[in-house]
Formats: sequence, structure tokens, C-alpha cells
Amino acid sequence: MKPKVLIIMGSDSDLPVMEEASKTLEGFGVPYVMTIASAHRTPERTRTLIRDAEKSGVDVIIAGAGMSAHLPGVVASFTTMPVIGVPLNASSLNGMDALLSIVQMPPGIPVATVSIGKAGAKNAGILAAQILARKDKALAKKLLSHRTKMQEEVEEKARKIQRNS
Amino acid sequence: MKPKVLIIMGSDSDLPVMEEASKTLEGFGVPYVMTIASAHRTPERTRTLIRDAEKSGVDVIIAGAGMSAHLPGVVASFTTMPVIGVPLNASSLNGMDALLSIVQMPPGIPVATVSIGKAGAKNAGILAAQILARKDKALAKKLLSHRTKMQEEVEEKARKIQRNS
Amino acid sequence: MKPKVLIIMGSDSDLPVMEEASKTLEGFGVPYVMTIASAHRTPERTRTLIRDAEKSGVDVIIAGAGMSAHLPGVVASFTTMPVIGVPLNASSLNGMDALLSIVQMPPGIPVATVSIGKAGAKNAGILAAQILARKDKALAKKLLSHRTKMQEEVEEKARKIQRNS
Amino acid sequence: MKPKVLIIMGSDSDLPVMEEASKTLEGFGVPYVMTIASAHRTPERTRTLIRDAEKSGVDVIIAGAGMSAHLPGVVASFTTMPVIGVPLNASSLNGMDALLSIVQMPPGIPVATVSIGKAGAKNAGILAAQILARKDKALAKKLLSHRTKMQEEVEEKARKIQRNS
Amino acid sequence: MKPKVLIIMGSDSDLPVMEEASKTLEGFGVPYVMTIASAHRTPERTRTLIRDAEKSGVDVIIAGAGMSAHLPGVVASFTTMPVIGVPLNASSLNGMDALLSIVQMPPGIPVATVSIGKAGAKNAGILAAQILARKDKALAKKLLSHRTKMQEEVEEKARKIQRNS
Amino acid sequence: MKPKVLIIMGSDSDLPVMEEASKTLEGFGVPYVMTIASAHRTPERTRTLIRDAEKSGVDVIIAGAGMSAHLPGVVASFTTMPVIGVPLNASSLNGMDALLSIVQMPPGIPVATVSIGKAGAKNAGILAAQILARKDKALAKKLLSHRTKMQEEVEEKARKIQRNS
Amino acid sequence: MKPKVLIIMGSDSDLPVMEEASKTLEGFGVPYVMTIASAHRTPERTRTLIRDAEKSGVDVIIAGAGMSAHLPGVVASFTTMPVIGVPLNASSLNGMDALLSIVQMPPGIPVATVSIGKAGAKNAGILAAQILARKDKALAKKLLSHRTKMQEEVEEKARKIQRNS
Amino acid sequence: MKPKVLIIMGSDSDLPVMEEASKTLEGFGVPYVMTIASAHRTPERTRTLIRDAEKSGVDVIIAGAGMSAHLPGVVASFTTMPVIGVPLNASSLNGMDALLSIVQMPPGIPVATVSIGKAGAKNAGILAAQILARKDKALAKKLLSHRTKMQEEVEEKARKIQRNS
Repeated sequence: MKPKVLIIMGSDSDLPVMEEASKTLEGFGVPYVMTIASAHRTPERTRTLIRDAEKSGVDVIIAGAGMSAHLPGVVASFTTMPVIGVPLNASSLNGMDALLSIVQMPPGIPVATVSIGKAGAKNAGILAAQILARKDKALAKKLLSHRTKMQEEVEEKARKIQRNS
Repeated sequence: MKPKVLIIMGSDSDLPVMEEASKTLEGFGVPYVMTIASAHRTPERTRTLIRDAEKSGVDVIIAGAGMSAHLPGVVASFTTMPVIGVPLNASSLNGMDALLSIVQMPPGIPVATVSIGKAGAKNAGILAAQILARKDKALAKKLLSHRTKMQEEVEEKARKIQRNS
Repeated sequence: MKPKVLIIMGSDSDLPVMEEASKTLEGFGVPYVMTIASAHRTPERTRTLIRDAEKSGVDVIIAGAGMSAHLPGVVASFTTMPVIGVPLNASSLNGMDALLSIVQMPPGIPVATVSIGKAGAKNAGILAAQILARKDKALAKKLLSHRTKMQEEVEEKARKIQRNS
Repeated sequence: MKPKVLIIMGSDSDLPVMEEASKTLEGFGVPYVMTIASAHRTPERTRTLIRDAEKSGVDVIIAGAGMSAHLPGVVASFTTMPVIGVPLNASSLNGMDALLSIVQMPPGIPVATVSIGKAGAKNAGILAAQILARKDKALAKKLLSHRTKMQEEVEEKARKIQRNS
Repeated sequence: MKPKVLIIMGSDSDLPVMEEASKTLEGFGVPYVMTIASAHRTPERTRTLIRDAEKSGVDVIIAGAGMSAHLPGVVASFTTMPVIGVPLNASSLNGMDALLSIVQMPPGIPVATVSIGKAGAKNAGILAAQILARKDKALAKKLLSHRTKMQEEVEEKARKIQRNS
Repeated sequence: MKPKVLIIMGSDSDLPVMEEASKTLEGFGVPYVMTIASAHRTPERTRTLIRDAEKSGVDVIIAGAGMSAHLPGVVASFTTMPVIGVPLNASSLNGMDALLSIVQMPPGIPVATVSIGKAGAKNAGILAAQILARKDKALAKKLLSHRTKMQEEVEEKARKIQRNS
Repeated sequence: MKPKVLIIMGSDSDLPVMEEASKTLEGFGVPYVMTIASAHRTPERTRTLIRDAEKSGVDVIIAGAGMSAHLPGVVASFTTMPVIGVPLNASSLNGMDALLSIVQMPPGIPVATVSIGKAGAKNAGILAAQILARKDKALAKKLLSHRTKMQEEVEEKARKIQRNS
Repeated sequence: MKPKVLIIMGSDSDLPVMEEASKTLEGFGVPYVMTIASAHRTPERTRTLIRDAEKSGVDVIIAGAGMSAHLPGVVASFTTMPVIGVPLNASSLNGMDALLSIVQMPPGIPVATVSIGKAGAKNAGILAAQILARKDKALAKKLLSHRTKMQEEVEEKARKIQRNS
């Protein structure tokens, strides 16, 4: 199936976190492609990947990066597709460096920023599905089921831990 | 025209910032509705607004809030539409409180966070248009023209200030 | 016994920290009920729990949450009972995200915020007892005894470690 | 009328902020007394004030302080009444110093911390009323009316600013 | 020998850090007494300890505390002796809470603040010796020798690691 | 009179803040000398000033600096006298850069750090007097009178603002 | 004269700050060219500018940017020349966002980061001159004279403000 | 071979991080000398080292330091050579203290600051080579090869992890 989402990260060390995004998309049956490109070490490769993604029908890009996390913003500079940025905790500064680098984009080129690390990577997958679902009713239904399932999980856990003194 | 975007903010004091979002949508010819609802003072109103927006064909919600900026997350808890959060600088903490309250959503309920203040509000408008453009080719073209216009503005400014010693 | 305090948390992973609150209430003989509800994943359940608590005679609510810790504020939006918020350290940001999300409430809807993590959960239990003690003289006496016991513990430790060169 | 709330602050320069608390209590018809005592410059006066407040029937203390904001914690060390701490923005650090000094109390002695500055002072007044209302049904009703009034204000403002493109 | 320095800390869990101060004083032959007192749990004990120290000829007080680290400031409110504050890393906030609580004293009551944790406790011992040495020439000489010894240690280490490519 | 305190700052723009220190010393009748030396622009001058101060009978040095505030630490590297560091708010970072540069000294060379800005400069003057007072009973008495005067000022202000509802 | 330094900034609003760099280079007689290019709005222009600079004999690039300040890193990804990054204070976060975005470059692509704002822009000019001076003895002499002049200015100011009590 | 780069650090505990700089220089065949000198414990040694380095033909200095990281700035005060500062994570504050101490140099004396820790030490080596390469064409070629090698590594990793759903 032709991918609808491109997941891109700066280094293979980011894979264990970014797999939360790909697993989430798999759960929704959204086709994706996941690869590595560095904003700084492979600027040409990054540009080519984005241009190719635009041609091949990708609708959303998820980019994860740590430290001076320029990848999501650089990706956004090459396309008018929605770009979701995942700040990674890859330095001693706990991901605050990546968060500010990704979220504080100047006016004109937005990056849709999610939380730092695994929670953010998972949410990036859900957000990508939410965007795609605006023109895919079957996917919209899956998002509703996922929401219901989360509610049931909370209620199930509540039953297990509930206690009275 | 039926609105495609709902812009919502916690207080009328947020209006001068959030108008950057509405003006941006107007520039792209995207119909929107803009109103006030507080996550804390009017929880029922917030829920009703979101439910009504879903029924009336809105595709994206932009929510701006300052301090303990719960509005975007609370909005996201009522819908599976994409929700864009704009952190506002409304306390002595320079918007850092709002940024962390909005972006650090737990796994399951994403908020697409943009930069603090006016730059973020403008980018929220562009991001909403980028999401809508995935199923609206005319809008996609407008986004490309907007990008080209920004490039020309930079080049124009470069000509004006360029100097050699 | 009918519970006087409702302890609520966003996830079962918060239980080891929030048990400091329940154990403290047990130490004072204050009846409580402890459960899970998520501001974002189960907004309806949260509302229902608070409404039921109001009817059943609960006087104070303790809510613990991490990251974009909206639960205490969302709980406070449904009731005029005192709500105590416990910021949990549940992300790479050391609980600073939860602290600002909980404490920086806009004017109109207060949340009584305590310290991050286990110290805060324990203090939430004591603060709830202090509030209840305003109309319960037996509990007020227990709080005084607890204070005296803490003083004796400090003095006992002082005797053990005191040293002169 | 005998005061039910003692409002205490470290300096007369804190008065314009702390008056948000006293005005809020006046709005609810809650009798209070407001004065100055410094944790560091007048430790004895602080202790005496708290002891006298306990004897005279005060039920809640509101303490506001900036910088190394020790006053709320020092007050809490002298009493088992609920103590509400208001962090003031009184240095170049935007109130972050006062917030951490007040909220990060060690286990055993809680301070119910509210937001920085005027929003916090107002919320301190409401929180004090919420605590007193647990044994005062008339006050509980006033809190509900206040909540309704806030909702109406938001709705009124929404009508004024609402706009469609 | 009569103690010249009082070392005081809020909890016995602070002992492994604060022993850096006592060991440093021992190295200089400065008599000290080390004990526990909590600003919040034992306010009276703290006051008594400081008053007794003044009478018994103590010249400098070293106070270590974590979280809402009020102990050094509270100690300083009871005496005009120099008080040295050691911020301890005792919460998830890495000691930043204790640092701001200790160093940001309002005008009128200074606390001589040193670095967070063990480095600070050691430096507190040296600073206390530097203060005492203004009226103790033998101690002043020991401080000079200590400085020379540190220089030699650096030079010794430099010889060991120096390398050329 | 021979100066007992050397006040040193990195730039003449620091003078309005550092005069809080000199005025405080004047209030106590402590002779001082105040001058400019930059850790980075005039390293030799700084060294010479400290060596001369040691010879001329100075007992305490107060050094104020902003940004990468190295002056207090550099001064401390040239002497075993107590060095008091005043962090100045001289950049966009609100003095946090200067605070961390001054307070986080490595083990071996302490700097007695006070609060940021004018409050700190004033407290530096008081702390210097406290150190000198260990061998000057007349000065010790003045410190006690100063403390009493501050208490009276607080009480005077309390009388003025005290109000009951 | 052929430029030796390229000064580049993201927006014409950065000009008043970045002129500190150009004026400094003029003071040293270093030829430069100054222009605007945005990492995000004109990625192609940025790449072309850097490639052209390499061909025309530029030896050092100075890049200033605020918010998600990607420009210096993006520039560095296109060249192996030394790139100096100036963080600009262009959002509510006081330049901390730009500082972390610029300085926290991942291993492989350095950016030589200087202080935030005007001080940094001036230092960028001096640092560029220091780099060029490694192969230009006349420039090296000018740097020494500049250093001497700064010393004299400090000494001159010291004479003006020096005072004794 | 005569060293072109002096690597200097404050303590032997910094060696495992700073070796990233020396290994990088070795990879480029740049001769260097690496040693220890403390800004605070051995100010004279530091000055002598820098003066000797200037005479022996060193062109760039790399200085690493943690906490109140004054070493790079102190080194820069003794020379007009380019000085590269590496902030080390050597306290509970995650290297933020060292970063601000190094980067926020006042106007007049720049320090070229790189990222915190190992990434920064490696980048310091590359930046030193970039500076030297302005007058060494063979080294410039090595830098280009290194850049190409990094690109190939990213592409190789991309091939390994790339996956499609």
C-alpha cells in the first residue's frame, strides 16, 4: 500500500522512541514508511525525501529529533504538508532543548509539536491518524473505537485499584 | 459558509493574540467561527461547543490558553478531530506554564502545539489550513503561493538591508 | 463509614505515589475512597465521580496527575469543594510540567497545590485532614499529636547524629 | 465580627496584590483581618500573630510572600490550621523563586499553594471560602452563585466577540 | 574545646552531604557541633539552638536544607552571626528549589549561599574557616597551605593525564 | 580610615546596584573602597587589586557581576579572605546566568552568594558587617540595632495597613 | 574588497542587534557582507548563499536567529567553514529558546555559540576576527590593541567611580 | 610535531568527556597537547599555560569545565586566540550552570561555546579543525571527507532501519 505517513528521525538511536509512532499507525491500519535523515549531516537527503514523499501521496510527516532538534522545522521548510514534531530526550537537558527547538517556530512555518519522548511519539501517530481521518471515514471510526477502548482501560484499572478506608 | 475551523479561547483578553489565527484563515479563505469558552469556568459550554462543531462539519479546532492552559487538552478530550493548541503568555512565567500545560499531553490524547503567543496563533491558522488542504486542492495551491510570497518578502528585505563593508 | 475525602489519579502508575495520601488519611482515621479517572481519556467519568462525591458527603478532593496535569483543574471546574492537586514526576521534565499545569490556575478556580511526588501526596493527606479538622475537634487533636510526634522524631534523630569535633 | 481568615504578608509593597484576597473575602461576606509580618525580620511577631489567630477563632490563614518566600511555611510551622501560600513576583526571577520556596514543602507541613501574583491572591480568597464553606451552608451557596456568575460572564463575553468569517 | 561553628540540617538523610562540611572543619582543626533541627517541624528547637549557640561562643552557622529550604533563612532570622546556607538536592527538581529558597533572601537578612550538594557543603566548611581566620592567624595559615595543596594536586593530576598527539 | 571591605564590580553600569552595598556599609560605619575591575578585560588589574587589598588590611571582598559572572570566583582564586558574590541582572536571562555562574563554585574555592540585584547588594553589605563583627563588638551592637529597627519598621507598616472586614 | 565574513540573519527585525557584529568587523577593517536568509522561509536561498560564500573566499560565517533558531545549524550543514551562532531574544522566552536551539548541536556539526543578543553579536564579530587573525598578523595586532583599549577603558571608569568611605 | 591545539580542563574527572575532543583531533591528524588547569585552584598555572601556548604556535584553545565553569572565560582573558568552551555536566543542574557560565560572556571577550558534554567535546575538536583549516588545505579536505563519511553513515543506518507498514 502506498504510505500516507512518512516517519523520519535524525539517528538510529531514536528508533526505540519513534517506534511508538509506527506501532500506533499500524494499530490504525495506516500505511507508513519510516527512515533516517539528519537535518545537519544529510541536508540533501532530507530535502529529497520530502520532495519524494509529496509526489508519492504522503499526507503527513512525523519528524523526531533531540538536542538542537532542527529536523522537524527543516522538513517543514520543504513542504506545505502538516509536519508533526516529536522532541526527544537526547541530552542532559531532559528534552527541554529539543522541545524549544521544535515548538518555537517563527511565524510562517508551523510544526505541530507533541510531548517529549515516547508519549509524544505515540501521540504523533494518533495526531497523524486524526488528520488523515478528515477524509477517511473508516479511519475516523477507528479513532472513536480507540477512544472508547482507552476509556474502558481506565475504568478497568479503576475497578482494580479502587479502595475505601 | 459553514465553518471548517473553530477558534476557541479562554478569555476575551486573549483576543488580540488569537486574531492572528483568524486573520490567517481569512487570508486563505477558510471559513471559521471564533468564540470564548473556559475549560474551568464553563466546562459544560466547552463540551457543548465541541459536540456542536463536530456535527456542523468543523474539521480542525484551534484553542488558545494561558497559565494552567487546560483548554486545548480538555477540548481534545471531547473529540477525535485534530486540536491545535496555542500557548499564551498570560502570567509572569512568560508562557512557559502554558507551553508545558499544552504540549506535555499524556499518551492517547494529542494536542498539536505551536509557538507561544502571536507567532503561534498565526502558525495555528497555517497549520489548520495545511490539514484542510489534504482534501482541498485549491487551498493547497494557496499554501504554496503563501510560501512563495514569504520567500519573496525575505528576498525583498535582503535587498534593502544588504550591505558590504 | 462514608468517605470524607475522594482521592483520584489519572493512571494506575500513579498509585505508589498517591498511596502516601491514603496511608496518611488512614493514620488520622479519616474515611476516604481512592480511584482512577483521566481528565482526557474519561472526561465523563471524571464529572460523574465528582458529582457523586458531592452528593455522598465528601468534603475534600485530592487529585494527582503528571505531565500536562489537567486532572486537578478539571475536577475543580465541577465542584466548589476544596481540591488539592499533587504534581507527579511522570516525564523527563522532573515534574515541573505537572507543577505549572496544576498551580497556575486562572482567577476563579483555585487548586491547592502541594509539592511534587511522594512528599506532596503525604502533605495532601495532612492538608485534607487540616481542612476537615475545622469542624472535627477529635481530628484537630490528632493533628496536634502528629505534630508533636514529628518534633520528637527530629529530636530523637538529633540525639543519634549529634557530634562534636 | 470575629475574623475567620488571617491574611498576612511580608511587606507593605505586597498589599496591591494581596488585596485581591481581601476583596474576594469581602465579596463572600467572610470576616478577615489583614496585616504584615516578616518571617525573617519579625519572627517573634509572626509566631505571636499565629498563636493569637488560633485563639480568636480564625480557621484559615493566607500568607503571601516573594523571593525566598518563607512566610507561608514558617506560618504553617506554628499551626495545624490550613495555610494558603501566595507566591509573589518580587524579584527578577518572575516569581519562580517564590513559587518553589512555597510549594516544595517537605513531608509533614503542607502549604496549599496557588498561582503567582494577583490570580493567586484572588484564588486564595476563594479557596479560603471553600474551606470555610464545609461548615457554613450559606457560604457554600454563595460559592455556587459565584461560579454561576463567572459562567454568565464568559457567555456574555463570548456573545460580544463571537465572529464568523 | 568550645565549638566555633554550628552545623545544622533539617533531616538525618542530609548527613552524608553535610559531613563534607564537618570533615572540612576537622581538617582545619576548627571545633564544631553538628545537629538536626527542622525549620518547620521543630521551630522552637531551632530558635533555642541558635540562641544557645550565640551564648556559647559560636561565630558561624552552617545550615543545609533541601526542597523549600527555609532552615538557613529561619536561622538567620534569629541571629546576626554570619549564616552559610547549603542547598541540598532532595527532590525531583535537582536542588534548584533549595537554591532559590536559600539564596533569594529579601533585603535585611542575608544568607551566604554556596553550591548545591557535596561541593557546597565542603565549601561551606572552607568559608566558615575563612570567616574565623579573620581573627585567627594560625587558621589563616592553614587556609593558605590548603590552597597550596590544592594547587599541587592539580599539578600532580596534570602530570598524570598530560598527553601529546 | 583604612578600608575593611573592598567592593569591586565589572562595569560602571553595575554602580547603581552595587551602591546598595556601599550605602549599607556607610550606615554601619564600616570603611570601604569601591572600584571597577573586570575578570576578563583586566585580569592583571583584578589580581593586583586583591593582592593590595590583602596587604592593606581588607577583611572581606564584595564582588558584583552579571552574565557569565566570573569576577567573584576569579577574585576568590587570588585570596583566602571571604568573598561575597552579588549576581546582577544584566542580560535577558533575568540574572539566572549570573546566579549560577557565581554560586556553583567547585569544591575548594567558595563564594558566599547573595540574592540577585539590589536586595543582594544590600545583603552583601550586611553580611560583610556580620563577618567583621565577629571581632568588633561595637559593630555587633550596630547589627543588633539594625535588626531591631527593621522589626520596628515592619510593625509600623503593619499598623498602617492593618484592616478588618 | 572581497568579503572575509558573511553575516546572515533570519529577519530584518534582527538588524539592530546584528549590526553590533558588522560594526565590530568594520572597527577591525575586516571586509564582510551582511544579508537576510531564513532557514525555513528561504531554504534554497540559504543554501545558495553559503555555496557562493565558499567560492568567493569567505572564511567565517556569522548567523543570528531567534525562537527555534535553526539558521546557524542549517548554515553549518552546508559548509565546513566555522559558523558562529548568535542567539537572539525574539520571543517571550528571553532568548533561552534560541540559545538551546543553537548551542545544543548534535555531534558532527558544530556551531560556535556566543551570548544572547547585542553582547553576543559584538562577540561574534571579535571571534570572527580572532579566527581570521590566525593567518593575518596585522589583524592579530589589531586584536591586541583592542584588548589594551578595553583595559584602559576599564581603568578610566575605575578612576571615575572609585570612592572611599 | 608542535601542537596546534591546547586542550585544557579543570579536573581529571573531566577526562572521559574531553577525550572526545582529543580523539577527534587525532582523527584529523591535528597535533595537540592536553592538560589540566583550574581557573580557581591554579590561576597562575592557567595564565602561564596560555602564555606558553601562544609562544609555541598553538592556534586554538579548547577548554572544558563544569559547574561555575569559569575556565574558558578566564583562558580567553589571557589571549586573543579563539577559545572554544565545552560545558560539562558536573553537578545536579545537568550542565545548565556550566552552559550559562561559559556562553554568556560579556561584550569584548568571546568564548565559542559548543553543546554540553560528549557531543560538545567532539564538536569542539571539529570546530578547532575548521578554524585551522582556513590556512591548511589538506585539513580542509579531511573535513569534507569527514562530512561525506557522516552522510554515508546516516544513509547506511537508514537502509538498516527503513521499514514500511
